[in-house]
This record gives sequence, structure tokens and C-alpha cells, in this order.
Amino acid sequence: MRILYHQPLCPYSRKVRLVLSEKRIPFEVRIERVWERREEFMEMNPSGTVPVLVEENGLILADSYAICEYLDEAYPDLPLMGRTLGERAEVRRLVAWFDGKFAREVTDNLLVEKQWKRLMGRGSADAASLRAGYANLKPHLDYLGWLAETRLWLAGNSLSMADLAAAAHLSALDYIGDLDWSLNDAAKDWYARVKSRPAFRPLLADRVSGVNPPPHYADLDF
Amino acid sequence: MRILYHQPLCPYSRKVRLVLSEKRIPFEVRIERVWERREEFMEMNPSGTVPVLVEENGLILADSYAICEYLDEAYPDLPLMGRTLGERAEVRRLVAWFDGKFAREVTDNLLVEKQWKRLMGRGSADAASLRAGYANLKPHLDYLGWLAETRLWLAGNSLSMADLAAAAHLSALDYIGDLDWSLNDAAKDWYARVKSRPAFRPLLADRVSGVNPPPHYADLDF
Repeated sequence: MRILYHQPLCPYSRKVRLVLSEKRIPFEVRIERVWERREEFMEMNPSGTVPVLVEENGLILADSYAICEYLDEAYPDLPLMGRTLGERAEVRRLVAWFDGKFAREVTDNLLVEKQWKRLMGRGSADAASLRAGYANLKPHLDYLGWLAETRLWLAGNSLSMADLAAAAHLSALDYIGDLDWSLNDAAKDWYARVKSRPAFRPLLADRVSGVNPPPHYADLDF
Repeated sequence: MRILYHQPLCPYSRKVRLVLSEKRIPFEVRIERVWERREEFMEMNPSGTVPVLVEENGLILADSYAICEYLDEAYPDLPLMGRTLGERAEVRRLVAWFDGKFAREVTDNLLVEKQWKRLMGRGSADAASLRAGYANLKPHLDYLGWLAETRLWLAGNSLSMADLAAAAHLSALDYIGDLDWSLNDAAKDWYARVKSRPAFRPLLADRVSGVNPPPHYADLDF
């Protein structure tokens, strides 16, 4: 069986889980305690990060960008990268927006600061980082809401990798109670649509020891 | 004519310039002073970053990941992403390595810290960041050297996006005099090979006001 090494609250792992589920590709998950830098894992991925996907034929794929592009090439039935060159450029621009800009400005300041430091035993979250993360969340939700209002899905007429990348980050932040959905109604409506997809259910069932999600986390009518 | 908005020392802009040149796609460059957040530029790319490519048909492409994947799809004659699924996964893993891990651990600590702060008038570089950047350079050059010794090119038998991503970062660091090539001979030999390609010439001719490169920067026999 195909195996995905992951961390439950890692947005990049969540994105790959969503892609696999949307494409109805069966897989098993293994939680990798990346901070232990397990030798067999480091051999599969010298960067020591999740997600890592091991295909049934033995092919090892590391890094969510490489994995997601691979999955869309190897399992093209439900294309998630767009069809025309222009659509594909827009999907990828937005994937880079969420996995790059949003990650640096929001996720790193909130999720990484709180969760990673807790897991690594590196003390409490830095107050300035948390302030920056909360301040950056509003303009990002506004941009997402604007995209959701002007298009059917974030990158155009179809659900795409852009929606899954965005939802992966937002769902991880939602789990730790850091998403104020009152900031933007259109963003909330879009998230409710993504969240109600069958592919999302396993993420909503995630529970991380020592961190309980807020009551609305798994509520489809939040 | 196709136009690339760029910054001379931006590794992501350099990567796109190398890809365009390797594929012999003609283009004009425009230096974008991204810190001015010019309105017309922000409309093309709301994230406000270079590179941005405007195609002759008007298609606007933002973010080096989206641009590079686009260029390999639209101009497939010299493929730079590998051929088989496995090759493509390895090219993309290494692109993510250099544009992600290397960028965070080395480029951000040296180039961004020095150059960006200077351009933005935000004071002098942080000593701890510089120390971290120099310390991280050695293991990265060792990994690159190991790849170069065990393969013809970084990702396999052909020159690929992985080589161009790596060379883009290293060349920008070399310009500001932050690359100690004595750290790894195999990495140096690989760089000499990439540097001597015709596509590299425009990068070696770059001059940035206020920062002179070391004498070996443009020397093919450094």
C-alpha cells in the first residue's frame, strides 16, 4: 500500500492528504516525528521534512510541491492544476501564494511558533511573532474572500490545487483556534464549501495529543 | 517582445533568466524596484515580488515556480524538468531544496540580510543571521558536491531546473562575495561547468550600483 509520512497539523502534509483523497487514490498514513531525525526517514528525504510519499512501486517522493505535481501527472483523471497554460499558471501562482507568502506571514508566525516550539520543547511562542501573524491574517482572508467572490473556486471555475493549499493552511490554523472567521464572510463561505467535501473528513477527525481543537473545528455548519 | 520584470541579484529572477536563455526564448528585462510597490506592477502581481513574466500574447505570469513550470510546458524543446515521473520528482525535490531550504538557511541569512536591508534603508545586517548563513553554507555545498560527484548533473543525467535553481542562488551569493569556493571542490567544479554555459553570460555581466562583485565573479576559470 502507498504510504504517506506526515504530521497531522503540517499544512503541506494536509495538502497532499487532500489531493490524494480528492483523486480517490488509496493511501495509509504514518505519523513521522520529524524532530527525531530517524535515520531511515532521513535517507528517504535528506531535508528531514514531511510529507514524504512512498508509492507502491517503491518510488519515494519528497516535498509537497514535487508530490502534488507528480500526483497530477501520474493520476490525471481529476486534474487539479488547471487545463490551459493560463489556468495552470494561475493555480500555481496561488499555490505559491499560500505555501510561500501566507506561510511566511501567517502560518510560520502562529502555527510554527506555537506548535513547533511546543513539540521541540523550545519554550513559549514569541509575542511579536503572534502579533504579526494575527495582523497578517486579516488582509490574507480579505484577498482569499475577494478571489472566492469573483470566481467559483480560488483559481477559476474548478476546484484546484490552490483551494487545497489554502484550505490546508487555514484548517491547521483553525485546529489551534487561531482563525477568526468573522474577519471575512466570503472566505468563511468558501471554507465551508471546501470543508464539507468528503476528502476533508479525515482532517477534521485529526486529534493531536495536548491540543484540543475549538468546538467549531469539525463542525460543517460553523 | 516578452518582458521579464526582475531584480539583478534576486535568485528567483536569475533562475527564470537562465531557463529562458537555456531554452533560447528571446526576452527583454526590466528592473523592477519592488520596494516602491508600483501600482501597475502590483496589479500584475499582488504579492509584489519579482520575477514577473509578460508573454507576447499578454499572459502575465507571477512567481518563479509558476513561470518555470509554464516555460517547460509551453516550450518543451529543451525539457528541464526531467522525462520520467521519477526524474521529474527528483528535479522538483531539488528545486524545492534550493528555493526553499537553501533559501531559508543560507540566502535569506546572507543576501537578503545584506542587500535587502541596504536597498530598503533598514540598517545593517544582523550579525547572528550572517553567522548562521555562513555556518549553513558548508553542509549545503557538501550536499551539492556529493550530488555533483555521483551524477552528471544535480538531478541526474541531464542539466535540469535543479541545476539552474542552485546556480541562481550561488551566483547571487558569489556576486556579494559570500561564497567560499574552497569549502567543496566538487561543488566548485560543478559551478564552473554551469557558469561557462552561454546562458550564464548575462548574469556575469550584471552590475548592481553600490556593490562590486569580487574579481572571480565573472571569471570562468576562478
